[in-house]
Amino acid sequence: MGQAGRVTTAPPLSPTPRSTVRRGATRARTDRAELYAVLDAGLVGHLAVVLDGAPLVLPTGYGRRGDTLYLHGSTGAASLRAAAGGARVCFTVTHVDGVVYARSAFHHSVNYRCAVVHGVLTPVTDPAERLLGLEALTEQLAPGSWSAARRPDRKELAATAVLALDLAEASVKVRTGPPGDDDADLDRSTWAGVLPLRTVPGEPEPCPLLPAGAQVPARVRNRVLRRLSPSA
Amino acid sequence: MGQAGRVTTAPPLSPTPRSTVRRGATRARTDRAELYAVLDAGLVGHLAVVLDGAPLVLPTGYGRRGDTLYLHGSTGAASLRAAAGGARVCFTVTHVDGVVYARSAFHHSVNYRCAVVHGVLTPVTDPAERLLGLEALTEQLAPGSWSAARRPDRKELAATAVLALDLAEASVKVRTGPPGDDDADLDRSTWAGVLPLRTVPGEPEPCPLLPAGAQVPARVRNRVLRRLSPSA
Repeated sequence: MGQAGRVTTAPPLSPTPRSTVRRGATRARTDRAELYAVLDAGLVGHLAVVLDGAPLVLPTGYGRRGDTLYLHGSTGAASLRAAAGGARVCFTVTHVDGVVYARSAFHHSVNYRCAVVHGVLTPVTDPAERLLGLEALTEQLAPGSWSAARRPDRKELAATAVLALDLAEASVKVRTGPPGDDDADLDRSTWAGVLPLRTVPGEPEPCPLLPAGAQVPARVRNRVLRRLSPSA
Repeated sequence: MGQAGRVTTAPPLSPTPRSTVRRGATRARTDRAELYAVLDAGLVGHLAVVLDGAPLVLPTGYGRRGDTLYLHGSTGAASLRAAAGGARVCFTVTHVDGVVYARSAFHHSVNYRCAVVHGVLTPVTDPAERLLGLEALTEQLAPGSWSAARRPDRKELAATAVLALDLAEASVKVRTGPPGDDDADLDRSTWAGVLPLRTVPGEPEPCPLLPAGAQVPARVRNRVLRRLSPSA
């Protein structure tokens, strides 16, 4: 989503008590460009709401424009209805970048990038902004599809809630590198290191209803996933 | 985690009102083996708790033994301390299996498998069960590491909270297959279909402190990730 051009001008993250990373504070990143990079590299985040006093966390797509994250859902979904009433939410995007094998069970870990956003969901009512939000959501999931596919019609728009989440209160944690084994374990013969993981696209599977010989467009065939954080 | 042998004998999921899938009920699966399969294929889940009235969702590792899910964390982590006090939690594991490109923006979607567990975290205090829980956690993240690596010592055990989550109240949703476009859009020239995604390991990166020539063990080199659900 073009975050590279924003790296030098993005304001820093300004942590509040809630978005201050306490555990593993050395893994906290404070650059707003890191937040954008983690969000922009994802397909699905996890939205947590409180429903009847209990937490509920479900995966959902999203899109970003500047410092606004857009979510959407059916106007009939209970979780979104609850969240859209001004209740507080937490939205987390996580990339698992590798398994960290250590010489001790205790120091096994995961290399990851994780963005956590706290805020309230605001229903977007302005028709133009609703379309911009849906464009961001579509392009996050499937770059190029907003131009290629039919845009939402009146009926679809009526059935879709578009919700905005401000990125003001957010934190980013990143772990990279080898295991942090204890010195006393370094003589063990146990292998230690990182098994890097990445998400890769397979062969596109055309819809059975496509005409024979329909070409897979470059936006699908050449898609690249899981862009790394600029500072990774 | 050997779920294949359990498929025929596992009891069905018994949904409560909270774990009954409402949106997209045709995507709900009701076989307990599906729950095991989705959980066993994952590395990291998202744990949601309510902290000071607001939801908080963070990624965390886990391990399964039968109908118990084990989580762990530092005894100093505020989110785990809150959840371990008998408060309700929600734990969700999601696999993104593909991007669904449709002829309309509205019908774009994601192929996925998702397990959602509701319950309370119970601190595990029995020393033997604590070790079994840590073994399950370690093996979920790094199969073979519990045997190969040094086991937790007294100090490490004292610093680690092991928590159990019963799998009694859980739901599973799975989406597979091509887009569900409207008939009126089938004449469009827009490409439609699925771009399958999978997580693959890269070349193992040995710890710089390993002796020269240390061999990468088969448990790391030959690791296979993201096993598909048996019914996918």
